Amino acid sequence: MKARLGLAAMIAFAPPVLAGAAPGDALRDPVRSYRASHELAILSSLSQLLAIPNVASDRENIRLNADAIVAEFARRRIPAKLLESPDAPPAVFAEMRGPATARRTVVFYAHYDGQPVDPSRWTGKPWEPVVRDGLLERGGKDVSWAALKPPVDPRFLVYARSASDDKAAIVGLLSAVDALQAAGVPPSVHVKFFFEGEEEAGSPHLARILRDNAALLASDLWLFCDGPVHQSGRKLVFFGTRGVTDVELTAYGALRRLHSGHYGNWSPNPAVEIARLIASMRDDEGNIRIAGFSDDVRPPTDAERRAVAAAPDVDEPLRRELGLSRTEGAPERIESRILQPALNVRGLAAGDVGTRATNSIPTEASASIDFRLVPDQTPERVREKVEEHLRRQGYFLVQSVPDEATRLAHPRLLRVAWGAGYPSSRTSMELPASRAVVKILSDATGSPVVRLPTLGGSGPNSLFTEILKAPVIGVAIANHDNNQHAANENLRIGNLWDGIEMYAALMARLDF
Amino acid sequence: MKARLGLAAMIAFAPPVLAGAAPGDALRDPVRSYRASHELAILSSLSQLLAIPNVASDRENIRLNADAIVAEFARRRIPAKLLESPDAPPAVFAEMRGPATARRTVVFYAHYDGQPVDPSRWTGKPWEPVVRDGLLERGGKDVSWAALKPPVDPRFLVYARSASDDKAAIVGLLSAVDALQAAGVPPSVHVKFFFEGEEEAGSPHLARILRDNAALLASDLWLFCDGPVHQSGRKLVFFGTRGVTDVELTAYGALRRLHSGHYGNWSPNPAVEIARLIASMRDDEGNIRIAGFSDDVRPPTDAERRAVAAAPDVDEPLRRELGLSRTEGAPERIESRILQPALNVRGLAAGDVGTRATNSIPTEASASIDFRLVPDQTPERVREKVEEHLRRQGYFLVQSVPDEATRLAHPRLLRVAWGAGYPSSRTSMELPASRAVVKILSDATGSPVVRLPTLGGSGPNSLFTEILKAPVIGVAIANHDNNQHAANENLRIGNLWDGIEMYAALMARLDF
Repeated sequence: MKARLGLAAMIAFAPPVLAGAAPGDALRDPVRSYRASHELAILSSLSQLLAIPNVASDRENIRLNADAIVAEFARRRIPAKLLESPDAPPAVFAEMRGPATARRTVVFYAHYDGQPVDPSRWTGKPWEPVVRDGLLERGGKDVSWAALKPPVDPRFLVYARSASDDKAAIVGLLSAVDALQAAGVPPSVHVKFFFEGEEEAGSPHLARILRDNAALLASDLWLFCDGPVHQSGRKLVFFGTRGVTDVELTAYGALRRLHSGHYGNWSPNPAVEIARLIASMRDDEGNIRIAGFSDDVRPPTDAERRAVAAAPDVDEPLRRELGLSRTEGAPERIESRILQPALNVRGLAAGDVGTRATNSIPTEASASIDFRLVPDQTPERVREKVEEHLRRQGYFLVQSVPDEATRLAHPRLLRVAWGAGYPSSRTSMELPASRAVVKILSDATGSPVVRLPTLGGSGPNSLFTEILKAPVIGVAIANHDNNQHAANENLRIGNLWDGIEMYAALMARLDF
Repeated sequence: MKARLGLAAMIAFAPPVLAGAAPGDALRDPVRSYRASHELAILSSLSQLLAIPNVASDRENIRLNADAIVAEFARRRIPAKLLESPDAPPAVFAEMRGPATARRTVVFYAHYDGQPVDPSRWTGKPWEPVVRDGLLERGGKDVSWAALKPPVDPRFLVYARSASDDKAAIVGLLSAVDALQAAGVPPSVHVKFFFEGEEEAGSPHLARILRDNAALLASDLWLFCDGPVHQSGRKLVFFGTRGVTDVELTAYGALRRLHSGHYGNWSPNPAVEIARLIASMRDDEGNIRIAGFSDDVRPPTDAERRAVAAAPDVDEPLRRELGLSRTEGAPERIESRILQPALNVRGLAAGDVGTRATNSIPTEASASIDFRLVPDQTPERVREKVEEHLRRQGYFLVQSVPDEATRLAHPRLLRVAWGAGYPSSRTSMELPASRAVVKILSDATGSPVVRLPTLGGSGPNSLFTEILKAPVIGVAIANHDNNQHAANENLRIGNLWDGIEMYAALMARLDF
């Protein structure tokens, strides 16, 4: 456990959350006071939303989530409705007009769907929220909901699928609206809300929903409310996301499993072929060796590089937290590494390992890979470069499982199955809107926010710019160690409290 | 299906089984006649033995197999007993003295244990023998035991674990004894039987049993009755086996699964490390690239090369049967390839593939590998060379799952878990015993047997030579397409009939 103290200690020595905001702040004080007197109600509202299963493909439950959110807006007398597209989870749209002086319109984006779950890997159940007094991996214990008394310890965590990704944003935004309404503070801009229901499924219908509702969604800025804060604990504004696409490669051996003694080093081994293909595409320092893969990469500007350099250096404590004795591309820091494209082998499968292994030659072998893209790479161009590379290795590419004739016709045969994808996106840090968001959040949180040109993760941000011609800026509130996309996803309650103040500040003070 | 006709056609045009033996053969005729009038009894005896589960680690059932075999010898008034070693399945020993003129003693080796099973992959159940009228993969249909009438179609197959590997040999040997006894033909040598109960588990106690019973097991020759015939359908005598050992390599990433967007190309990817290690050890033509790996390889003699060249060329029909458009090391033929050492990746595992894949970095990745060795390689020397290679790639090697301090101390860390192993073995084809076995079997089957210096598979043969100073020659009877070590193992009934005649000829005519 000692080895993990590094980052914890660093966080402990970081400026206390929001402590730097001047006392007597005319906005922060009433918002904080509202939250302090409604902590249990806010957590109850979060818990109720988290109890509704929310995988995009679960059509019945996903719609219950949307209906529940519409009902929340209705309780606040904010008009809300569902934006429908055939065979898709609806998006929730709501609008809160600003006063006559408001010049700008801002859309707050979040998503109410979550990643698929493997319940066997969870402590507890994914859609039965549990409060714990610390991270599970550091021995956190359950705290009963009934035993919670305000003020709730901000180090406590709520465990459930989408606790941080991304229902925290929805509850945070609704609570910010409540706090401003209670304080009688009007928004400084016209506010729209757009909550998507299939982000974790790759947003296959988002473009259509945006196009079908372009007038309704017209704005000067999208605020993308998703993602974790910086690993230092400092709040994070990000100006783009990495693009993403994925592929599964499958190589084939003999039609049946063969005894490795009688047929080994005569019958081709597909596991070896897959291993050699991976080795041809990437080294173990993260460098991609696919010719032309990075042709379209637009280097970061000097301003972007400076912003990255100004972020607190968390490499060392992060390494200790994660049990890593090295990182890829060291000494380059993580904030700089994610400005580059990535090739991640997310899975390998062939034959059997461990006690199930038998002395036989696997009939096939698969590698599942995701690619992270940076400006100006697109999934289409990346696919082209990857396929060219695979062909140069001597492979004939097919899209579906090959029949026997196809196997007999091609000495090196590879099934290549691409998933969906987004291009990357990046908004200039120099826009008036960009400067305004950074200033408001730095003021609200009392310390300079970390500014990153690119979040490591991906989102459909490019669509907003491409279809609706609006810039997109990301505002993160979730803790970095939230087990995003994995089992035991969680949200540190203090991060939600901070998020409410950040969203309230943006709604009440943003102008550009 | 057309593509598979090649080998089937070749077999059809091969000399009919045993047809070449001269009519009126004084030994073959009574043996064949005995079999013809006892087909159902022999198959019933096989079926009863196959119905006893026989995985070596299943201590209760494995002993039932041994007891059943002892009872079979007793029925024939041949003294038999169990050779015990603590915590091991017993070996069955039996002895049939030859007449006073017999000069030599020959031990017939077989094993009664079988490979572990994965019942979910079987059509039917592993220990409930089923007769089928053809190979399952070519649409073979069940034939009820009650409906079997002599003469049983020799193309029918018995499906069960160990049908061919290796209970066929045990039932074939017992039936050969019966046929000789019925015909009043005495053996030409003193015959001993040694049936092992843990061959498929790597024979961990065999050396001890041999040492403890060295006097009892004294002989001039071991006949290793195991393995499939040549893929051409011709009978096979083999003068050695490849040695074997195995290893599992595991590389480690972060302690928890990380989002591949936020941490990709910063946090090391263990699947990439494993892939690169495999690529460093072997190319996709079967060539091993581990420095010094082949230092101990003793090249085949000219006689051995000539024997290999004389074997029927089955590469092309075998490729078609297996759906392979290429083979490793082509145009070198399979019989020649197995004279060389092999590195087989029998399994890969990391993260998830297919619909379970998530955009995360695996926490660990494993490759399971078996090595096939040739004279004079030993498992010990191979382990040494492999570990040297892994260290040269920059890895620190550990034997057990590393703790956090170990992970933090070594930038490249690899868990290396070796299994057991045998060295290779090879008996000279020029020994009088070798020439005698080949001549007797060629005469008995009416066509020259295929002679191979090395069977592709492995066996504990080296122990007989090392401990008991006796040469070992392998005699195969099972069909080559028997799904050995896999689900739906089978034995073609005609192969058992042939085996009975081959064993009878060896017992009655062998002298050297």
